[in-house]
Amino acid sequence: MPLEKICQEVERRQSEFVERLRDAVTIPSVSADKKHREDVFKMIDWAEKKLTALGVKCKQVENGTQKLLDGSTIRLPPVLFGTLGEDKNKKTLLVYGHLDVQPAQKSDGWNTEPFELTETDGKLFGRGSSDDKGPVIAWINAIEVLQALKVEIPVNIKFVLEGMEESGSEGLDEVLLKNKETFLHDVDATCISDNYWLGKNKPCLTYGLRGVCYYAIEVSSPKQDLHSGIYGGTLHEPLNSLIHVMSRLSDVNGKIKIEGLEKLVALLTDAEKELYKSIDFDLKEYSNDIGCKKLVSESPQDILMNRWRYPALSLHGIEGAFHSPGAKTVIPSKVIGKFSIRIVPNMEPDAVSKLVISHVEKEWAKLGSHCDMKVKALQGGQPWVADFNNNLYSAGARALEKVYGVKPDYTREGGSIPVTLTFQEMTKKPVMLLPIGACDDMAHSQNEKLDIKNYIKGTQVLAQFLLELSQL
Amino acid sequence: MPLEKICQEVERRQSEFVERLRDAVTIPSVSADKKHREDVFKMIDWAEKKLTALGVKCKQVENGTQKLLDGSTIRLPPVLFGTLGEDKNKKTLLVYGHLDVQPAQKSDGWNTEPFELTETDGKLFGRGSSDDKGPVIAWINAIEVLQALKVEIPVNIKFVLEGMEESGSEGLDEVLLKNKETFLHDVDATCISDNYWLGKNKPCLTYGLRGVCYYAIEVSSPKQDLHSGIYGGTLHEPLNSLIHVMSRLSDVNGKIKIEGLEKLVALLTDAEKELYKSIDFDLKEYSNDIGCKKLVSESPQDILMNRWRYPALSLHGIEGAFHSPGAKTVIPSKVIGKFSIRIVPNMEPDAVSKLVISHVEKEWAKLGSHCDMKVKALQGGQPWVADFNNNLYSAGARALEKVYGVKPDYTREGGSIPVTLTFQEMTKKPVMLLPIGACDDMAHSQNEKLDIKNYIKGTQVLAQFLLELSQL
Repeated sequence: MPLEKICQEVERRQSEFVERLRDAVTIPSVSADKKHREDVFKMIDWAEKKLTALGVKCKQVENGTQKLLDGSTIRLPPVLFGTLGEDKNKKTLLVYGHLDVQPAQKSDGWNTEPFELTETDGKLFGRGSSDDKGPVIAWINAIEVLQALKVEIPVNIKFVLEGMEESGSEGLDEVLLKNKETFLHDVDATCISDNYWLGKNKPCLTYGLRGVCYYAIEVSSPKQDLHSGIYGGTLHEPLNSLIHVMSRLSDVNGKIKIEGLEKLVALLTDAEKELYKSIDFDLKEYSNDIGCKKLVSESPQDILMNRWRYPALSLHGIEGAFHSPGAKTVIPSKVIGKFSIRIVPNMEPDAVSKLVISHVEKEWAKLGSHCDMKVKALQGGQPWVADFNNNLYSAGARALEKVYGVKPDYTREGGSIPVTLTFQEMTKKPVMLLPIGACDDMAHSQNEKLDIKNYIKGTQVLAQFLLELSQL
Repeated sequence: MPLEKICQEVERRQSEFVERLRDAVTIPSVSADKKHREDVFKMIDWAEKKLTALGVKCKQVENGTQKLLDGSTIRLPPVLFGTLGEDKNKKTLLVYGHLDVQPAQKSDGWNTEPFELTETDGKLFGRGSSDDKGPVIAWINAIEVLQALKVEIPVNIKFVLEGMEESGSEGLDEVLLKNKETFLHDVDATCISDNYWLGKNKPCLTYGLRGVCYYAIEVSSPKQDLHSGIYGGTLHEPLNSLIHVMSRLSDVNGKIKIEGLEKLVALLTDAEKELYKSIDFDLKEYSNDIGCKKLVSESPQDILMNRWRYPALSLHGIEGAFHSPGAKTVIPSKVIGKFSIRIVPNMEPDAVSKLVISHVEKEWAKLGSHCDMKVKALQGGQPWVADFNNNLYSAGARALEKVYGVKPDYTREGGSIPVTLTFQEMTKKPVMLLPIGACDDMAHSQNEKLDIKNYIKGTQVLAQFLLELSQL
């Protein structure tokens, strides 16, 4: 079967595939918000139905319960396992993806309703369009097209689709560990499509990710919010103490002030430095896309290294303080500061958390605040870096080159998909990231989108990639 | 008419008066939230109807429009003027109150629905029960009772009721200035019931208030929120820069770091210091009520001075950052830090704002952030301190002593009612604050309440006070 026929068939069914994505985006499967937990379950059922229609044998694997910060306990969404083909003469590819999404509200600054897929200028706007419903559905589309064209897929395919990725993949590692000797035992390679190109025009294969450690600093004192006129000036105010301690995590340039953290970072070798020189990365376009006049460096290599191989600390916000428009004269009684650190080899989340917690406690002690303070690690995921000299990556590279007519870049990513490392460790086989989305897809942000071109060509790439795996 | 009859009549009608308050609390007249602007209008209409039923001649005075931070313009609620009695042989008392309330949502931590009046253990919980719907309605109740008992009120009464007090009384000063030579020209004294007792058992008269200046620091950089994994480490993040600058406003003890501000504060005289010694103030009860283990000082006099005669800076929160439970890995693109300073004699809001803005800009320059920053004064109200040796205060003192059997304390307040000073300046006549609520009413906070006892005895006090004004 020549690629041309596959491409034609994918293009012929374009509007059907867009409708399929629209259907999925409608389900607000926000894993971080307990109000939407039922929607995550609904989204898992939705995917099971689609896979079953392709002949995939599905199983929803129970994932226990989650204890929330407010003390309540709710059920975790099951992990969806699927098996397509059990031919002992074929190799087995594992496909991972996630069906949950980041929170989104129109009032956050979206131009359209986040849970209604909206097509504008060849872009499909909607929460999850690119992260990660679009890529998961592209796998479904690709297999459907190969089946419709009666092309034999040269590998068995297994699926692991989860609903908690945007909340630290809670429970997934345990589920995988329990199934290491059964469901996972015959996996020969893993492919994940849950990241982005470095730019907007050239595809890439990704061999490294940063990990992430997420923290909450809770500061409290009076038993309830107070009127700042009546009480202001008589007590240590929790938000004041919190902001002081949050200001001591990193400086304005992003330099992390946590003692000992720098020593955990792998040293930059000359060979590694060399790798960065050949990468096609337009710094001007990068800063224009995000609307940032000035970056922390003017060297493309520095910026790539800061995204890929150095840690970064971001403050995300404060829970419990006044956050609406207008003026409210309140002394909030309990405030929770949230921040995270993207981690890189050789930083281990446990070691990082130990340093972070000790730093926060030391700074807290220096402050001398009368308020109560607790600092907690909410989630931690390890970084991942792989060797890309193997048949898995060359199959991916061939598929990309055939569809796009250009050799892909080999990239790393600043974002985190902790399960990548889990698959590598449990299967002892290579893992590859094959993104279909562009750098400006704005995952986690307002106006997340997937270009129709990327969705359609991505579907073609995944179909071709499955065929290239005959050489796995 | 002996006081006894008035008291009996008020007590007889208790449930009717509670229902009247319930009715008013049901209207969520939150002036800070444009979604509730119509409810403020509704609340003004509600009050007009009640006053008209007492024979008060009412007039809704147009108050123009308000420009919101988001650029939109909405109508301001009218100011409700009322006149009861135009006897040239009587003196005229002006009564001021406000019909708008602070924002409130059950999810903020209320035990009951904030806009449903709920009676528990002799307390009436609900937003506005104490601040300031309860006191306004107590005036209405008091006049109604005197009329029912056919007692002649020895003064003419004028009302000024507004709907923007919780949003800096926007427009009110202009409305009053326009009516200075007409509606206000014959006012002989002003009484305001919109503050609180110092404790829970002993009534007081209040002769001083702090003013308030409210500020917003807006920091922005990228054109939209960004994924902290993909972009973290490459740009100056707005929330990081904002938190650095917010940490430089005051230290953990509340000591304000704004250069020159201290010099604006009136010096403490020996006579003033003496006044504080006799005030009945239980520091233990104060800190127990708010659930604060340790205050900034162990001296009751220091704490009272910090509340009444020294400025205080409170951080209120951040608009635009992540504020929900859970973990979101976002770099917010535009964040607005909110804080206010309670000001005291001889601090002028304009002079304070000049120092604040210059301080923020200086600290910002020191930071060297690439982000954009704007600092704005949102509202400013002057402090007020009055002489309490006059017939107005002695009428108030007699009424309180007759109802409560105890001489009131003379107090100041940490909170702000900027219009107090406006009335004093425009009428050139004394202004007195006669609170009916207790110190633990939790205005502006969760679970705001008014004790039934205070509501009923407060109504009796206001009725008796009107009679005592024969000696004004």
